[in-house]
Amino acid sequence: MTLWLPSLITPTPEEGYALAIKLSRMAVKMTQPDDDVRAELRADYAGDADSLTAVSQVVATNFQTVAQANNFWRG
Amino acid sequence: MTLWLPSLITPTPEEGYALAIKLSRMAVKMTQPDDDVRAELRADYAGDADSLTAVSQVVATNFQTVAQANNFWRG
Amino acid sequence: MTLWLPSLITPTPEEGYALAIKLSRMAVKMTQPDDDVRAELRADYAGDADSLTAVSQVVATNFQTVAQANNFWRG
Amino acid sequence: MTLWLPSLITPTPEEGYALAIKLSRMAVKMTQPDDDVRAELRADYAGDADSLTAVSQVVATNFQTVAQANNFWRG
Amino acid sequence: MTLWLPSLITPTPEEGYALAIKLSRMAVKMTQPDDDVRAELRADYAGDADSLTAVSQVVATNFQTVAQANNFWRG
Amino acid sequence: MTLWLPSLITPTPEEGYALAIKLSRMAVKMTQPDDDVRAELRADYAGDADSLTAVSQVVATNFQTVAQANNFWRG
Repeated sequence: MTLWLPSLITPTPEEGYALAIKLSRMAVKMTQPDDDVRAELRADYAGDADSLTAVSQVVATNFQTVAQANNFWRG
Repeated sequence: MTLWLPSLITPTPEEGYALAIKLSRMAVKMTQPDDDVRAELRADYAGDADSLTAVSQVVATNFQTVAQANNFWRG
Repeated sequence: MTLWLPSLITPTPEEGYALAIKLSRMAVKMTQPDDDVRAELRADYAGDADSLTAVSQVVATNFQTVAQANNFWRG
Repeated sequence: MTLWLPSLITPTPEEGYALAIKLSRMAVKMTQPDDDVRAELRADYAGDADSLTAVSQVVATNFQTVAQANNFWRG
Repeated sequence: MTLWLPSLITPTPEEGYALAIKLSRMAVKMTQPDDDVRAELRADYAGDADSLTAVSQVVATNFQTVAQANNFWRG
Repeated sequence: MTLWLPSLITPTPEEGYALAIKLSRMAVKMTQPDDDVRAELRADYAGDADSLTAVSQVVATNFQTVAQANNFWRG
């Protein structure tokens, strides 16, 4: 497998947030590796409010990890 | 994309809470970029108690991150 | 908007818990600002065990934040 | 209201766990203050596997807070 | 009640994980103390994917607490 | 039982993520030890968007633990 997560360190909070989204999707991809199936599923959950909130919860958890890794970009 | 998250640091807890809400919504926006679809969905979940609780859970997680970033505005 | 969150610091754990409840409700209020709608919804979820557990989960997350902010009132 | 949470500090992990359960129930009690309604609801969720798992999730979150407060009773 | 949680400290990560499972089940046991009812419920949730994922979420939260208590068994 | 979790320390973030997935699955395996049943269940949840999001939430929680254990691979 190609290296997809070389580091948790990002230059800015915004790139950290993008990484949190990537981390959130990777667990889905590793559980359902078929691209076509995932594309179909996306059409479903992208139109469902509760599904979107659940996605946002996962991103929030991963963003907390990334933000801690970066000392919250305080410097 | 316009810079939407320049920093996790906010002057006050209340502005930190507002940022937590912004972080919570951004994951939804990135998953469902269509403004009209999101507006429709909002009408649904804003009238459903469990959906609102789920939204509040995401905000709580993001607020924890923002509060840590700001050393809980202790100073 | 009136200042509703001047600080995360509270004199006692019990007041910290009350603040955690306030934080949990505020996200709901900001998502559904109509007082009458929220009053109706409350009647629903206050009579549903799983809804109440979900509310308690949000409070637990916010209480963790408030407790950390107060160094767990150890002093 | 009577003082119900004088401290997060407990002599032992087991008492800390009991406090986590108390914290979990208090949010429910404050949202649904009617003792009879809560007793009825308890009969429901105590017989439902997913409801019990959700309760256990809330306790886990509160126990994390209490354990942190007590420095994990390491001493 | 017999002492069931003398310490959060374990010699190895694997024993820490076992403790996390014990912590997860104890909240269920304290809410539903009837052994026969719990045995029946187990048959249900052990055959349901989402129920198993929810169980795994509780274990993850408790494992985080136990791992922190043990300084992640870094030494 | 064979030793399956000798350490939380991994050389890279990517191996840490793989460990987080392993931790997430182990709780399922310990609750439902029958390999055939788990294989059937997997077919179900791998085709359901919300189930996959829930799996990703568990992984996010475990990844946070593993990342903390490794000081976020900052060095």
